[in-house]
Formats: sequence, C-alpha cells, structure tokens
Amino acid sequence: MLTKTHLTNMAEQLTGNILIAQCGNRAPVSNASLAGIIEEALNHDCIEEIYGSLNGAHGIHQEAFIDLAEESQQTIRNLRHTPTAALGTSSGKLTAQELENVIAIFNTHNIRYFFVIGDHSAQTLADQVARQAQDQGYDLRTMGVPSTANNTLPITDHCPGYASAAKFFASTLCEMAHTQASQPAQATVSILEIPEHHNNWLTASSTLAKRKNQTEDAPHLVYFSEVPFSPEKFLQDVQATIKKLGYCTIAANETLIDRDGNYLTQGSTDAEAASRLAPSTAQYLAHLVSEHLGVTTTWSRPSLTAFASRHHISQTDAQEAYGAGQAAVRSAIQGENAKMIILTRGETDHYSCEYGVTALTEVINNNKFLPEAWINEDGTSLNFQYVKYMQPLLQGEMVIPYENHIHQVAHLSKRTIEKRSSQTVR
Amino acid sequence: MLTKTHLTNMAEQLTGNILIAQCGNRAPVSNASLAGIIEEALNHDCIEEIYGSLNGAHGIHQEAFIDLAEESQQTIRNLRHTPTAALGTSSGKLTAQELENVIAIFNTHNIRYFFVIGDHSAQTLADQVARQAQDQGYDLRTMGVPSTANNTLPITDHCPGYASAAKFFASTLCEMAHTQASQPAQATVSILEIPEHHNNWLTASSTLAKRKNQTEDAPHLVYFSEVPFSPEKFLQDVQATIKKLGYCTIAANETLIDRDGNYLTQGSTDAEAASRLAPSTAQYLAHLVSEHLGVTTTWSRPSLTAFASRHHISQTDAQEAYGAGQAAVRSAIQGENAKMIILTRGETDHYSCEYGVTALTEVINNNKFLPEAWINEDGTSLNFQYVKYMQPLLQGEMVIPYENHIHQVAHLSKRTIEKRSSQTVR
Repeated sequence: MLTKTHLTNMAEQLTGNILIAQCGNRAPVSNASLAGIIEEALNHDCIEEIYGSLNGAHGIHQEAFIDLAEESQQTIRNLRHTPTAALGTSSGKLTAQELENVIAIFNTHNIRYFFVIGDHSAQTLADQVARQAQDQGYDLRTMGVPSTANNTLPITDHCPGYASAAKFFASTLCEMAHTQASQPAQATVSILEIPEHHNNWLTASSTLAKRKNQTEDAPHLVYFSEVPFSPEKFLQDVQATIKKLGYCTIAANETLIDRDGNYLTQGSTDAEAASRLAPSTAQYLAHLVSEHLGVTTTWSRPSLTAFASRHHISQTDAQEAYGAGQAAVRSAIQGENAKMIILTRGETDHYSCEYGVTALTEVINNNKFLPEAWINEDGTSLNFQYVKYMQPLLQGEMVIPYENHIHQVAHLSKRTIEKRSSQTVR
Repeated sequence: MLTKTHLTNMAEQLTGNILIAQCGNRAPVSNASLAGIIEEALNHDCIEEIYGSLNGAHGIHQEAFIDLAEESQQTIRNLRHTPTAALGTSSGKLTAQELENVIAIFNTHNIRYFFVIGDHSAQTLADQVARQAQDQGYDLRTMGVPSTANNTLPITDHCPGYASAAKFFASTLCEMAHTQASQPAQATVSILEIPEHHNNWLTASSTLAKRKNQTEDAPHLVYFSEVPFSPEKFLQDVQATIKKLGYCTIAANETLIDRDGNYLTQGSTDAEAASRLAPSTAQYLAHLVSEHLGVTTTWSRPSLTAFASRHHISQTDAQEAYGAGQAAVRSAIQGENAKMIILTRGETDHYSCEYGVTALTEVINNNKFLPEAWINEDGTSLNFQYVKYMQPLLQGEMVIPYENHIHQVAHLSKRTIEKRSSQTVR
C-alpha cells in the first residue's frame, strides 16, 4: 500500500503558469522569498510563465499581472536585499464575488500554481483562493510563504523577516543608549517606541542590545503590550536606574494599557495619533518622566522606517526567506496544496533550518505569542531562552550594492500582462 | 626679514602633555577625529602623555582625565566607526572661576596642547580656554576640530559629521518611500521629522534620496525651517502629489513657523513636546492631512537615533574627520594657537580635501546657512549645486566589525588620572 507521503511525491504533474502575490506591510525579506520562488520555478519544466500580482489581493481580482520572467537577473538578485514588497501589497479579505472572479481570471491565464508571501493576511488570502478553487473544481496548487517582521504566525519556528527587524531594534536601541551615555547632561532618559500591536516579539528584540553578562547595558527597562502599566512603579524604576547609571534607556511597545485595560494613550496607532493629536506611547512616557522627575527626556519613533532598513537585514534571515520561496515551489510541484511553508530547527547541535508544510487552516486563526517563560520575574527583561532562540537567526550581514552612495534597491520593470478575462473591469 | 608663515613654522618647540575634549551632541564621526589626534600625537617627541577629558567642559574644570595612551590599539582603531563621543560630551560655557581653575589644573598636569572636537560649543570652549591661558601667561596651544552633523560652523567648506548624517536622512527617507510605494492602500502620506533647529542642512539632505533625473522620486515635498508655512498650500501640494503618484513622502524640519513667525507647534523640541504633550511637527502635519484629506498618514521621528547610526557613516567623512584630528596636532606643534581646523576643496578637477586653520574668533559667533540659491523656486526641493557640493562627501562605506551580530563599538577602558590639583573638589 502506498503511504500518504508516496502519494504526495507521486502527485500528477500539473503544467501551467504561476502567479505570486505579496500581502501585509512589514516585510524586511519578503522580496528574498519572491526571488526564491522565481529562481526555483525556472528549474521546472511544468512551469511555463511566471507572473506577479500587483498590490496583493487587489491585483489578483483586478487581473493586474506583470511578467516576472522578463525581469533582468540583476534585478532578481537585488531582490534578496531589497526590503518591503517589490510587487506591492495589500491586506483584507476578498468578497465572494471577487473570489469567483479570481478563478475565472486564473483559468484565462492558465494559472496552476499560486504563491502568497506574507503575514496572516497573506495566509488568509491563500486559504480563501485554495477553497474557492476546490469548490469550483479548478485544478490549482496554492502555497503560503510566511514573511513578517512580527513573528506571529504559528507552527513555524520563526517567520522570515523577524530576525532582520530584531536587528534593527537592537542596533537602534544600542546606538541610542550609546549617545545618551556620551552626553550625560543632555538626555537622561531616552525612550524608543516599538511599532507593534498586541504582541511582544519586536519589543523583546530590543533586549538583544545587551551584551552577554553586561546586566547594566541598555535597555534598562522594557515595557510589554497588555501588561497593566503603573505610572508609580515606572517612575520609581526610572529614578533607580538614573541613580545607579546616570541615565536610563527604555523600550516600549506602542500598545501599553493602564490598570483598567484601556490604552495608555489614544495615540497608539499612527492614524489615531494623527487624527486626534494624541501623544504616542513614547511621548506619553517622556511626559511622565519630565513632569515628575524633572529630567531631560528624548523619544524616538521609527514607525515604518523600521521595517524598510536594508542595513539591518540578517544574512541568515534573507537566506531562509529565499529557501522558503524555493521550498514552496518544490512542495507545490510535489502535489501539496492549501499549505504554508514552515521553518523548523534541525535536531543537530549546530543550528540548521529545515522546511516543512502545515495546513493553512492551522495557521489563519492562530497567533504565536512570545512565551511568558522567557520574560524575567522583573517583567522588564528577557532571559537566556530568548537569546538562545534568536542568536542563530541574527547571523551575518548582507553585502549591499550602492549607486551614487545611496543603496541600490531592486526596481521591477513591471511589464504588464494584457488583461484577457471578460470579468475584469477595464 | 622672516614672514609670518616662517615665524609660525619655526615656533619654539613646546614639550608637554596633551588633553582632548569632545563637546556638543550630534557627532557621527567625532571619534574618528579623536583617533586622528591620538595616533598623530604618538609621532611627536614633544608630546609626552595623552589625556582625555571626561564629559567635555565638565571634565576640564573638574580634573576628570583619563589616560588615552593606555587604551588598546584595537580600541583606537574602532573609534573610527563608533558614532557619538567616546569621551562623553557637555555643552555650556565656563564661569570665570571655573576658567581660572582650568589653567591651574593644566599647569599641575603640564598640559601644553589642548584640543576640543565638536560644534560651536566646542569652539567656544577652546576660545575661552585659549584666552584665559594668554591672560594668565600660561604657555598653551589650543586647537578646535570641527565636528557636527549640523554643518553650521563657518569658513570650513563643510564639517566632518554632516555627510554621515546626510546619508542617514537620505537613506531613511528613501526606504520610507519605498515602503509606502509598496503598500498603496496603507500609508498614503508619510512624514519624516528632521531634528534640526533654525537651520536646514539636515533637512536638505533628505533630497539626496532622489535619483538623478528621477523627479518623481521621494521626497516629494520638503519643508524648511523658518519659511512661513501655509496649511492651505501644504494640503494642495499633498493632494496634487497623491493624485499624480498615489502617495506622498514628506521631509519636514522640526522648527517650522506659521505666518506670524510662531512655531507651528510647541512640540518642536523633545523637552517641549514631552513637558506639554504638544504634537511634534511631523505629527502636526500628519494631523492636517488626516483631518482635511482623510487619507492614511504615518509619521516617523528618529530624534537622536539619527546621529548615532554607524551604518550610515560615510567613509570619506570618517577619513576627513581623522585627517582633521591629525592636522590639529601638526598645526599646534608648528605653533598655531586659538585656531580651528578648516577643510577646503582642492583646486583640481577631482575632489580633494585640504586642511587649513582659521581663528576661533572668526568661528564662534558666526553660522553657516544653506545657501538660498541652492533651493529651487518651488521652495520644496534643491538644485544641482547642492548635489555637486555633497556628492564627494558621501563616498564610500565603512566595513564594520560585529560582535554577537550586533555591531562592535569602541568602549574606552577609561583609566583615570589621579587628581592632583589643590583647586579641584574631590
């Protein structure tokens, strides 16, 4: 009797075109996965054309496709160190009508392989399209590729994108503290706001700025999302740090809550802060310090610049993102469908990354949270388990090409594919 | 008859110790100048000990000195790519009493060469000490070394530190725009706040993100300090850009003024914003967009993290900063006193940097402003003259050592020199 694995490996060959989409908005190495899919696809005879969907979900139901095989090799190589999404992204589910349209469009272009790179919104899109194809009896193999700075996708050991974002926050915090230490009179308290909602993976990464066994290194205090915030305790802790070291460096998640479970400030998101002129979390903490302790404070809010920093891309992260793209193509050709690529750690002493798959249905409604056991009793620092998890993922830096002394990013030439479907509004 | 130049070159040899201080708080390559002074000093027999003053002016009147010759060669080498001030800085003038104390302390330690690296506050300190020494008949040679991200010191063609900060703002803006372009629905307007008061050199640097002849590249709008800001014109310009490109990327100086000459917001400095919970300039502009155009906005405020980014150090900038340190030592040994090192462009076709000196009195009460002729008629972009000025200064990137995947900065071991002066409070 054939095992299930055998059946999968011997799946009937499906010949046709592939379409790739990117979804979500926090993706330092999403383009490395895009490059991995494109370059792997070229190795397989059953794949004919390689298309990209412009602006994620929008492109697939609007038939806004480009020809990725037309792009130069140099451009595809540059994708490996170009942050954000070269194809453009979007988020949001498709309506029933849009989904029906998608299958008609796929049929017109003979799309038989569909890959979506990104966060939960990407996996949701993949799941929606896979189900729709199944319902309509359309032969399609859909694979999600995890890619997000937030690290919140479950089952996979980690998400490509997270290690690079972690390097950004750790480096930035380290540099901020270094500046503070050099000007004792001018910035006694500095606060870095971490753009992250209802999760703490990015907030945690600020603690990587601490050198081994240098407990006095910054960050001195870290404030996690959804842990009730006590202004009194905060001021006490800040004052104690200043007394000991002369300054205090703080990392704070942007969605802190008060004792009653309400946001500390209504400026916890860009849109809220802008529309109501409400202070952001970092500014609010700076205000507390300034009002009650009377010392100089400074606050930084990198916002979306944090996710687009090419300088902080981890080589390991970019390589694993590329590998996840390759794995998605191989898995689909072997017959997998409605799955997401997962990354697992090898069993050996030395770190190794292996690729597997999990059902999209296992992913889309679940989140992975920072394990509570990794947070120290003081509630404002992380223990060795987090460092052990992160160390291998941070390895290596990318060699980056420059043009006129500003770094060179990949700009796709985006040759569009003629719209053919009768159902597409032109 | 001997000319003045001959007299200078044949100045009597002065033998003794040197003291180095750093002043001001925005210095990406200040430590490269520190390394230049230390390594050049080792070449001259007339220099015996090499001391550093901790925390700028504070250290010199408190006799808080460290032995820089004791530091490892590796540490001194690492100073070339360690941002901020390894010795610590301060700003502020000395009182008459403090100044008298300084000369007594210098005498006790046989300090005969005094170097101050930094911005206007550094040059002011150098000038004060040089005059005091002259008044007291104490034989001392004082030299200022320009170093500031702000580029506001006059006479010198440019200040070491500016090109590196310019690379930070140009890269960050470029990456911010790149993210925006990739997520058309999520962040239609993005605003980067430039931490700079009453000057526009850093604001101008954001325009280096534009590629040659790519007029549609970001930044689309740049707002300069002290140019009356019109909310109506601003909203029109933003709307026109969104209509044309789908998004709009903006750089704004933090000290914008309204038609009546008042600050656009009282949150124009960190301290003000924190104490009054007033919006920063970027947040205020985001608010205008959100209220009147109803589109999604995002705003970033790097604050002091901008001046501590080692990733953005220009190799040319670091080399010139090192050279300025060397030049200061050579000039002082040749007999110069109460001067600041200046950088000039060579007369040849290819860019070259030459070092000269100017009197500190010419520097301390004067500012260099961005030439108005370099700003285009639209008032929101810069012309080729600025690019021509900047191009050579941006050349090259530093190869940076990493330790545990976070960059390795120079940490001075800071072996303190025993206090000897009867006038120092212990």
